[in-house]
Amino acid sequence: MRSAAVQQDYEVLASKLREISSLGGISGLLGWDEMTMMPAGAVQSRASQKKALASVLHEKSTDPVLGELLSKLEQADLQSVDAYQQANVREASRNYRKAVALSEELVRREAGLESRGYQTWVQARQAKDWKLFAPVLKEWVAARRERAAAIDASKPPYDVLADDYSTGLTADRIRTIFDEVKAGLLPFLAELRSKSTAPESSWLMGNFETDKQAELCKEIALALGFDLEKGRLDVSVHPFTGGAHPTDVRMTTRFQAQDVIDGIVGTIHETGHALYEQGRNVDHDGLPVSNAAGMAIHESQSLLWERMVGKSRPFATFLLPKLRQFFPEAFPEDKTDADLYRALNVIRERSFIRVEADEVTYPMHIILRFEIEEGLIDGSIDVDDVPGIWRGKMKEYLGIEPEDDAEGCLQDVHWSAGLFGYFPTYTLGAMSAVQIFDAAKQELPGLDKDMALGDFTKLREWLREKVHSVGSLHPTADDLLLAVTGKPLEPQIFLRYIREKYSEVYKLS
Amino acid sequence: MRSAAVQQDYEVLASKLREISSLGGISGLLGWDEMTMMPAGAVQSRASQKKALASVLHEKSTDPVLGELLSKLEQADLQSVDAYQQANVREASRNYRKAVALSEELVRREAGLESRGYQTWVQARQAKDWKLFAPVLKEWVAARRERAAAIDASKPPYDVLADDYSTGLTADRIRTIFDEVKAGLLPFLAELRSKSTAPESSWLMGNFETDKQAELCKEIALALGFDLEKGRLDVSVHPFTGGAHPTDVRMTTRFQAQDVIDGIVGTIHETGHALYEQGRNVDHDGLPVSNAAGMAIHESQSLLWERMVGKSRPFATFLLPKLRQFFPEAFPEDKTDADLYRALNVIRERSFIRVEADEVTYPMHIILRFEIEEGLIDGSIDVDDVPGIWRGKMKEYLGIEPEDDAEGCLQDVHWSAGLFGYFPTYTLGAMSAVQIFDAAKQELPGLDKDMALGDFTKLREWLREKVHSVGSLHPTADDLLLAVTGKPLEPQIFLRYIREKYSEVYKLS
Repeated sequence: MRSAAVQQDYEVLASKLREISSLGGISGLLGWDEMTMMPAGAVQSRASQKKALASVLHEKSTDPVLGELLSKLEQADLQSVDAYQQANVREASRNYRKAVALSEELVRREAGLESRGYQTWVQARQAKDWKLFAPVLKEWVAARRERAAAIDASKPPYDVLADDYSTGLTADRIRTIFDEVKAGLLPFLAELRSKSTAPESSWLMGNFETDKQAELCKEIALALGFDLEKGRLDVSVHPFTGGAHPTDVRMTTRFQAQDVIDGIVGTIHETGHALYEQGRNVDHDGLPVSNAAGMAIHESQSLLWERMVGKSRPFATFLLPKLRQFFPEAFPEDKTDADLYRALNVIRERSFIRVEADEVTYPMHIILRFEIEEGLIDGSIDVDDVPGIWRGKMKEYLGIEPEDDAEGCLQDVHWSAGLFGYFPTYTLGAMSAVQIFDAAKQELPGLDKDMALGDFTKLREWLREKVHSVGSLHPTADDLLLAVTGKPLEPQIFLRYIREKYSEVYKLS
Repeated sequence: MRSAAVQQDYEVLASKLREISSLGGISGLLGWDEMTMMPAGAVQSRASQKKALASVLHEKSTDPVLGELLSKLEQADLQSVDAYQQANVREASRNYRKAVALSEELVRREAGLESRGYQTWVQARQAKDWKLFAPVLKEWVAARRERAAAIDASKPPYDVLADDYSTGLTADRIRTIFDEVKAGLLPFLAELRSKSTAPESSWLMGNFETDKQAELCKEIALALGFDLEKGRLDVSVHPFTGGAHPTDVRMTTRFQAQDVIDGIVGTIHETGHALYEQGRNVDHDGLPVSNAAGMAIHESQSLLWERMVGKSRPFATFLLPKLRQFFPEAFPEDKTDADLYRALNVIRERSFIRVEADEVTYPMHIILRFEIEEGLIDGSIDVDDVPGIWRGKMKEYLGIEPEDDAEGCLQDVHWSAGLFGYFPTYTLGAMSAVQIFDAAKQELPGLDKDMALGDFTKLREWLREKVHSVGSLHPTADDLLLAVTGKPLEPQIFLRYIREKYSEVYKLS
């Protein structure tokens, strides 16, 4: 095919993809509205609207004309289009192949399982009884195996599923990484448990007017670089970042009267997601290359800001006077920014609950889930045996045993929605955050000093250039990390960071 | 066709119509979001989203399968379906015929004229120069004539256009009504002008905290019956009522610090629209019969609440203590609810601006526009001659002459969007409101007493039963009025109301 013809096909493809992206943006807005603005009585009508839009999106995404264009372009010599355009063809082909692979029957069955799964999970958790949840989870496992086989029967099913959340991610790769993390973390956790120099953090609790918290958190989000010209900041029960477009990013937070830090940490986390979204490449607006590079990298951006920045020593220097400004007399006068830094980094090593875990114990919560869900999908673990296996691994990894299924294997909503292969991206994201921040520090001298002064411009612009605007240019998260940091994901960087930071915070040395 | 087959076809039709309605609801939500929540930087991405959704809606609305079903059902014996279902077939056929009648070229041309028309109108109004606006308006007149011919070449073009806003409305019918209104109003206005017993209303002005105004207006909207379970109340620059569904009605208001009455009147007006929307018949959810019966009837609902209720003697009795409760000491102590009633009903007989007009002079503003736009469409008036004709009619009808085109023929946005046939629905709505309220008062004894006590339940439920839930069951607005009030629109009822009310307010007798 000649290059003019290739260009022409490419343009037709691009316009079809942009239309799909616009409709997807609308879907994002509906989701945001539902969580923040929608009146309670509209639940049913909104469900119909979402269903109608999803069906349109499915129609457009499986349009045979799209398929023909893509197979022509895949076979063509793509010399005449640039790397970003080539990435668009690659990503669009992958999405198309997945969309057309699934039978209507399976798609309908999974949609049914989604609402039934959620309701059953809520009931089972209330009753603290895995047995109530097991039958629907068995259906999910079967459906997800079918899904994986339909998409690519030549690969291990778990790999096909994980690919939905982070392209190219495989169980082998995850296992290799997690084994190394386990080997490094378990002895360190044992060492921590044997000492008792935990930082004092109760002085951070109090009674903080939520209006004032909102004001403070908005100030922090803006300082980090959230752009109100291209987004909104609202309140919702479960904080999230969504929206309709890089120019229309909607993030939410929530506030608890007694715990000002919780709202701040949540805000910084969502700001990290939001900066990624606002930094997407509008030169390739509406095209897949401008999409985020999967869930692990998205999480790396929220966690980089939350942990590498928000729980760092220089940020404590920036934050303490702000806290005192907004809540005069709420904190003891003798507390210093060094005290704040230590208090922000308390390890909750005896917590059963993943979402309450700190950065040291968190990976163990995830590794446990990965090991179980891989077994469920490859058939080596039976759904009925999950509670016992869960208990055993909790004991082995964290030295604690949950009282019941509600604080054990029923605590997370993910499996009720068929999300197998999603959990690992949380910890891979956390590790990527460390590795990316490590590279940033090397390339940006004076970063600590800037952050202590509340100036995050250089870091934000560096991330925008290296990560946000690069989108899905690279085929996998490892390729992106290689381009940004010089290596694919490297567990030792994460382990070194954990050991150094917490040896200091917990005064181990 | 046998009745089982008819029923089956009907069900397929209904499911297609429901899908279109759901997508239309999404479009409504996008519009609301744009006016209330959307960040400024998202203008362009939102435009793409709206365009993508509009194109999907057009595709679905012109789906040939829909056309086949409709023509089968139109030819079938519809004994086996009920009156509401028959109305669905009638309305859906009408919508389908209109949707497929237009060429893609015309649709695209009109979309282009819409944005060009708006921009040109803004510039022309700023420059106070009709000549800048005339060329694009000529294009609009030509496009709208083409549109009318494409839809139904056998009818006068103005009739085809007016039908878009109120089914079955014709220029002849409008002219007959408006001539009668003119004949009754002009002498009455002359009589008013020759007297000078205008009510004192300056005591209502002041400095009113807008947060408190918002609280008061919310209380009033809830008292009238706005249901927050099925809707929201927000602030926007231009108040409007929109939303996604009868269970998701979004109304907005605005507040001016110096004029608390302006915010209240606007709130009551929008509440009238919102009650109509919330009262739509969910038994026929997503089907055309549940839609409002055109713009004139929609306006009748907002104006019934705004004028028949909100500017009535009993409402003044309800309102005055509320005003004093929210703004103690803002109003002179010696003012009574009788004074408030008169002050609410001041006639601005020397205003050039339609949107600032009162209920006595308002019809003349509309009649003038109707006479001009009918002439533009039938070719008897040239676009270039509009300013002179406008001036002449202002003089004849209201005894005043605008200084320039900005306060004359360039004041309204409507023609810039090609809205010919829309203006009459404002006054037809006002007249319908009077006639409907007249019927309500006869059927609901004690209504005045209830309203003075702030109890609007009976009136709201009566409207819900007679108007809101009836939707588009009747083919035309006149048919609906006949069913509700015993007669089609009858100008003498309106004229009698005006004469009686304003003779009392202006102490003419």
